[in-house]
Amino acid sequence: MFVIIVYDMNVERVAKMCQYLRRYLDWVQNSVFEGELTDSQFKRIKHDIKELMHEDEDSVRFYTFRTKEQVKIETMGILKEDIGCII
Amino acid sequence: MFVIIVYDMNVERVAKMCQYLRRYLDWVQNSVFEGELTDSQFKRIKHDIKELMHEDEDSVRFYTFRTKEQVKIETMGILKEDIGCII
Repeated sequence: MFVIIVYDMNVERVAKMCQYLRRYLDWVQNSVFEGELTDSQFKRIKHDIKELMHEDEDSVRFYTFRTKEQVKIETMGILKEDIGCII
Repeated sequence: MFVIIVYDMNVERVAKMCQYLRRYLDWVQNSVFEGELTDSQFKRIKHDIKELMHEDEDSVRFYTFRTKEQVKIETMGILKEDIGCII
């Protein structure tokens, strides 16, 4: 499946979340990752994020679709370089 | 079509971008909007964003789907209230 993950987290946890997601997905913008995942990877990621986040403070949104062909992606402006997980 | 827009902009333009997108879409998270648009609305939004952004500094990413049924949306943590366009 193709997955987009966007998150809005307390600054204390942003870097950790970013570092974690880089293991599985491509960083495309500040607090936005995307990429292909298997069902089991996606399940695991949701489990790990649950541990990492504070559910009463943070917000994570997952968009999933069967294949990348279902979504058209366009960008305007600079292509963010992967500068790492700097806050 | 169903559209997700994520942006990474200079702080000077963030509030303006947010205010602009609220006219057409639902604010779902910091720098993330989504909703249904007609083709002509989408064209207009891209045109307006081009005017509003600085293409050498900012980055805007558009994900479009034919219908909302193609995408599955899940959230974890708090549902961000629409607090307006505060930076």
